[in-house]
Amino acid sequence: MDYKAFFESLIGTMKTDGRYRTFIEIERQAGKFPRALWHHPDGTPRQVVVWCSNDYLGMGQNDQVLSAMHQSIDRFGAGTGGTRNISGTNRQHVLLERELADLHGKEAGLLFNSGWISNLAALGVLGRVLPDCVIFSDALNHNSMIEGIRWSGAEKHIFRHNDAAHLDELMASVAPDRPKIVAFESVYSMDGDIAPISDICDVAEKYGAITYLDEVHAVGLYGSTGGGVSERDGVSDRLTLIEGTLAKSFGVMGGYVTGPDVLIDAIRSLAPSFIFSSSLCPHVAAGAQASIQYVRTHPDLRQRHQEAVRNLKALLKEADMPILESPSHILPLIIGDAHMCRQSSDMLLERHGIYVQPINYPTVSRGQERLRITATPFHTPDLAEQLVAALKDVRDRLGWGSKNKTVA
Amino acid sequence: MDYKAFFESLIGTMKTDGRYRTFIEIERQAGKFPRALWHHPDGTPRQVVVWCSNDYLGMGQNDQVLSAMHQSIDRFGAGTGGTRNISGTNRQHVLLERELADLHGKEAGLLFNSGWISNLAALGVLGRVLPDCVIFSDALNHNSMIEGIRWSGAEKHIFRHNDAAHLDELMASVAPDRPKIVAFESVYSMDGDIAPISDICDVAEKYGAITYLDEVHAVGLYGSTGGGVSERDGVSDRLTLIEGTLAKSFGVMGGYVTGPDVLIDAIRSLAPSFIFSSSLCPHVAAGAQASIQYVRTHPDLRQRHQEAVRNLKALLKEADMPILESPSHILPLIIGDAHMCRQSSDMLLERHGIYVQPINYPTVSRGQERLRITATPFHTPDLAEQLVAALKDVRDRLGWGSKNKTVA
Ligand SMILES: Cc1ncc(COP(=O)(O)O)c(C=O)c1O
Ligand SMILES: Cc1ncc(COP(=O)(O)O)c(C=O)c1O
Repeated sequence: MDYKAFFESLIGTMKTDGRYRTFIEIERQAGKFPRALWHHPDGTPRQVVVWCSNDYLGMGQNDQVLSAMHQSIDRFGAGTGGTRNISGTNRQHVLLERELADLHGKEAGLLFNSGWISNLAALGVLGRVLPDCVIFSDALNHNSMIEGIRWSGAEKHIFRHNDAAHLDELMASVAPDRPKIVAFESVYSMDGDIAPISDICDVAEKYGAITYLDEVHAVGLYGSTGGGVSERDGVSDRLTLIEGTLAKSFGVMGGYVTGPDVLIDAIRSLAPSFIFSSSLCPHVAAGAQASIQYVRTHPDLRQRHQEAVRNLKALLKEADMPILESPSHILPLIIGDAHMCRQSSDMLLERHGIYVQPINYPTVSRGQERLRITATPFHTPDLAEQLVAALKDVRDRLGWGSKNKTVA
Repeated sequence: MDYKAFFESLIGTMKTDGRYRTFIEIERQAGKFPRALWHHPDGTPRQVVVWCSNDYLGMGQNDQVLSAMHQSIDRFGAGTGGTRNISGTNRQHVLLERELADLHGKEAGLLFNSGWISNLAALGVLGRVLPDCVIFSDALNHNSMIEGIRWSGAEKHIFRHNDAAHLDELMASVAPDRPKIVAFESVYSMDGDIAPISDICDVAEKYGAITYLDEVHAVGLYGSTGGGVSERDGVSDRLTLIEGTLAKSFGVMGGYVTGPDVLIDAIRSLAPSFIFSSSLCPHVAAGAQASIQYVRTHPDLRQRHQEAVRNLKALLKEADMPILESPSHILPLIIGDAHMCRQSSDMLLERHGIYVQPINYPTVSRGQERLRITATPFHTPDLAEQLVAALKDVRDRLGWGSKNKTVA
């Protein structure tokens, strides 16, 4: 078989479909966020404003985070040189796991190299180990949860997105004595909508299920101490397990799960993706802990975040932009066509020095192609106005959104 | 269902089996490696010597690595705030990927958050995308490769460990026109034996297969520039893809795959574990690149590593220790019983301030429980003598190894 020819034609097809992705090469600049350098393919660096980062609070450039990292590098060095079991458990991991458990009011926490792995590992182990387990999964769950469920081999039922009544229906159809897990997210990252956590917990409790909540796009941002939507809604204790990332609001990298001691211990003991991989650098753990501590004690940061979002949302509506109305900080601007979506993004970048990545299939379904805009406390009203002006220019040139206006 | 009771009994069983793992909490100390602080469960920190680290060259405390990280944190901050596609590709990723490709003489490289993910992603995508693909996998392949193969859904044939003749037999039995991948490692991490790469390539080429080599325990250590056993044996160009980690010899964290442009592009474009996860911190990438550059240009480091290993091996043999004869830097001391293995490790730690993690099932099969000892350029002859004296004391107390002597 001619492998090269095969892969060339595969990639050719992706290009024709508009599915092929070229990564925009940027250079973050600590202290200047959301400004960054864009390394243009022609070799010249240009200043741009990033409007699609998930460093939602700009913690990636926070002084206390950076100095915790500096200090830890000086003290502990770079890597751990081991998996968690084989010389790779450092004090910083243990301290961070306690901090995470505390953040969500849980007994224990477990750290992973990414949120992706935390979902794979946790849902994977629970679904595999519990005999004859059934997992109920929200239709829009993130790929990492889907992979965990698939890995577990457990029977899976998909409930309609955010639909507690449908969940109830599905759960009623399964034998009462079978172990059950309900897996869902709080803030859905592509539409920005928020789960009715309490309603879903009502149903899950009725059927005696474990509840598993992904708060990846909510930790740090919601709740009085940044414990996520579950904290904001006062329902943290109704969730068996809460999962999150250190790579978005906390501005570093890594993922985690928190929950009851024995469940966390089982995941720790049985997940290959955890067992057979070198652990996170100690200074990364230390940086993440400093970030969490800062974010927990700075509700003002959350307020400024919400204000920036509110302001931008108002401007986008005023300009009649086809945004998907969302109750969260995520502002999807629906373009509905892969090529046009990419063109819009290119134009923003080339003409206006504004970086908003086009989101195409498979991240969203076809016809739902969008620019996913995120504002942070560092996106000033001036920057927001510049963004909206640039979007108007792009819309005028490409002619999208003339029909579909604000999508309800 | 009473979930807590279920998991309590599950963990109870693991404890009875000797399979339950308690992580040793250490605190690395930059500049003092292999010395570290052990946080004793009673709360007191104690100085220990670590003899089970995979920071094989001590690069985790290398000045150039640490200063590259410091500088990058000052310039770029902590995290990237995005997946590679959504604002998460930084210049440092691109530069590191080029460095990695260059290290292995390949067209392209792709960076992941861990070696575990790199195997899952690469083998997963190739096996899934190639129509009717068959994967031939060494019997002792690492869990991450097994997971990748499983994820791919491709037909799998397991060849006897390091047995090119058996591989030939199996490959002969499969239709000639089906796409094929041969997946194996260079240095096997638990036995320390080395694959006959050239023989395996002979067979793979005979049947027109893609070759996929995991050099996780060999990069940095073998070959004139640290390109791994494939470089040492002069066969890098016979391997389609070479995979490795940044968390062992390079002393940082992260994983990678290198190979032909189009194959790397396909993995980049299609692996969910890559697409749907936030990227590595830029300063981690910068630290890893500094490490690779240092290691490539310091053959003396590899020599000192091999000398430390030779010296320790000689001492262990002189003391009649039941070590598995290995051609690599990994020195497995076979205890053959989970409880006794753990006891030996505990005794080394408590009585002698020496940390060697017991390796039990599932990392090795039952009856093969061992202390896996690794020497680095920083383990002086004095430290080696202290280790051997401590091992003698433990052997005298526990009475293992009296029968089995050196295992051939
Ligand atoms: C809902 C959700 N869960 C999990 C993840 C994975 O987290 P991480 O980026 O830390 O791998 C993501 C995306 O990155 C996500 O959007
Ligand atoms: C052979 C092999 N491949 C891959 C990995 C995974 O690499 P990483 O630790 O970077 O996840 C390991 C262990 O850690 C390994 O031993």
